[in-house]
Amino acid sequence: MQHDDHIENHDDFKNLVVNKGVEQVQTVNSAAAKRFLAKKRKLPTVDQFFEGIREGDITLLSQAVTLVESARPDHQKIAQQIIEKCLPFAGNSLRLGITGVPGAGKSTTIEALGMHVINKGGKLAVLAIDPSSERSKGSILGDKTRMEELSAHPKAYIRPSPSAGSLGGVARKTRETIILCEAAGFDTIFIETVGVGQSETAVHSMVDFFLLIMLAGAGDELQGIKRGIMEMADAIAINKADGNNVRRASMAKAEYTSALHLFPPTKSGWTPIVKTCSALENTGIAELWDMVLEYADKTNKNGYFAQRRSEQSKYWMLESINEALQSSFYHNSEIKKAINTFEQKVTDNEVSSFAAAQELLNMYFNKINK
Amino acid sequence: MQHDDHIENHDDFKNLVVNKGVEQVQTVNSAAAKRFLAKKRKLPTVDQFFEGIREGDITLLSQAVTLVESARPDHQKIAQQIIEKCLPFAGNSLRLGITGVPGAGKSTTIEALGMHVINKGGKLAVLAIDPSSERSKGSILGDKTRMEELSAHPKAYIRPSPSAGSLGGVARKTRETIILCEAAGFDTIFIETVGVGQSETAVHSMVDFFLLIMLAGAGDELQGIKRGIMEMADAIAINKADGNNVRRASMAKAEYTSALHLFPPTKSGWTPIVKTCSALENTGIAELWDMVLEYADKTNKNGYFAQRRSEQSKYWMLESINEALQSSFYHNSEIKKAINTFEQKVTDNEVSSFAAAQELLNMYFNKINK
Repeated sequence: MQHDDHIENHDDFKNLVVNKGVEQVQTVNSAAAKRFLAKKRKLPTVDQFFEGIREGDITLLSQAVTLVESARPDHQKIAQQIIEKCLPFAGNSLRLGITGVPGAGKSTTIEALGMHVINKGGKLAVLAIDPSSERSKGSILGDKTRMEELSAHPKAYIRPSPSAGSLGGVARKTRETIILCEAAGFDTIFIETVGVGQSETAVHSMVDFFLLIMLAGAGDELQGIKRGIMEMADAIAINKADGNNVRRASMAKAEYTSALHLFPPTKSGWTPIVKTCSALENTGIAELWDMVLEYADKTNKNGYFAQRRSEQSKYWMLESINEALQSSFYHNSEIKKAINTFEQKVTDNEVSSFAAAQELLNMYFNKINK
Repeated sequence: MQHDDHIENHDDFKNLVVNKGVEQVQTVNSAAAKRFLAKKRKLPTVDQFFEGIREGDITLLSQAVTLVESARPDHQKIAQQIIEKCLPFAGNSLRLGITGVPGAGKSTTIEALGMHVINKGGKLAVLAIDPSSERSKGSILGDKTRMEELSAHPKAYIRPSPSAGSLGGVARKTRETIILCEAAGFDTIFIETVGVGQSETAVHSMVDFFLLIMLAGAGDELQGIKRGIMEMADAIAINKADGNNVRRASMAKAEYTSALHLFPPTKSGWTPIVKTCSALENTGIAELWDMVLEYADKTNKNGYFAQRRSEQSKYWMLESINEALQSSFYHNSEIKKAINTFEQKVTDNEVSSFAAAQELLNMYFNKINK
């Protein structure tokens, strides 16, 4: 069964996510784990972690995130206890999802927008979500070096994506990292994704505002963007509106504005906005942030902000349940043996999709009831 | 737990469909069931059904569809046997999904397009998919009377939607009805949906071509269309391009064409097309159908047509499995008792989404393993 060939992993079904299940691979940052294990005897208590995080101690925060990312049951146990203590202090941030294809200038935009937030008195955490193996080649570590100013700033915390795992697993870790960062006093959270995978929907369902970074020259750069992402965006920023590109950028702005106008209205009461900016020249960045604040203000007033947060919490509970149910099914040894045959039969029209499903389900429930 | 309030039922997550589970309600067409039960002693054998269907006997086809729609295990058993026999003769049709908000002129368009197909020598089945209770008020029965020509034509078979049931249940019945209709020699299948629910994604994943019917006057009529549907469309037909409306329709055509141009390319290699038509005046209808045939020709040649069919079969197998797994979970008596409390705790930030999911999962697996 080739996972990528499934229609449910097609962008049109991007939310179905029939994972083969959560791969229980070791997802801990290996360098961090080594440091961590080296001083294992000195492992802080849950209370020490909690107090440190509340005081904004970045070292303890980072250690706690490493525990969150670890697949070791003992680490997970401590992580969950820390999260439980932090939960009442979480939620007080503005969570911004940022996506865009490679080359759109995501990291420079994050750097520019992030420095603006900090200069306005904010405290910023930048997280990344991307479960693809491509990511493990170090793109966010690359970002970190490219986000020079931000990564050196005491009011910024940049955390690379967990290096491996299923989308659901990475999403869980990111959600939990948000809780820890908020408890540590970060009032602004950026969650970055690459705009080409399934992770956009996951990010969209854990943020308050979803920003899509595009380039002028509609057509070419769209090759990389998955269908459906544009309809998720609360705003599109046409980046690199500088030098010779200014006119093209404002033409693209007009085109996207007219396209977004054809979309049905959003539940938030917010009409998606297209802005131009240049992260390089630092133009349009303050306006971009003002727009985000305007959104927060508007949705706070009309109640959508809180409603959406609550829906997101429930969504992740149900999504975690569904992923676990599927994981139990698709990892079942009998199912693993049989599923390819059934897929083939279904494809060959030998058995209907529903009859095949029924046989596999009988197999599974007989097995786990024993 | 209010089903409608779940974020996963939000249009952005339209494919997750965390159903409380398949409601095992009686979904059989009650009038048909009465007739059927009245002559129960004369129930044809599976072979008689099969042979009748292959000969194009509409009465036997209808009876078989009634069995497919029935929730009774004995009916289901016969239905599955009939489907199994029909499967090798299924697949040889062009399956067209048609959606649009009420008022866009869906039934007149289906009537006009359908009569065109039949006049060209085709045999047409029109099915409807719509699990909402609104539907049971008889809108497709209304359609049937409005589709006067079609419903009287011997080469057309119009079947109202199963009147109740979960989306997954209705989707299964529709997929199985397609198999029966194809085995009965129908070479064109229209599957209609109302354009305001979750059923569009289900229809989209069981058809070869997805047609969205819109009206001129962008903005107003969009209120009813759900976000994301436009990106599914292989074509948009701006209907009612007649009388005073012609100019508005061609302006709308230009606008939608430019908007679709901003979407990323589809996997099929097909660029979605916008057409104007008037079902009333029967203009643009032949062109609409020529476009569908062009699509079929193009995707047959590039292999996408067959690939998509195969993906759809696998999709429905996996989707059925997922729905059944969720049904088993959410119908579990302990889960039913506990889930509201956990949702509240999660909303109140007392427990994280993931910890709540874990507790519920432990509860479930302990129970079913006993």
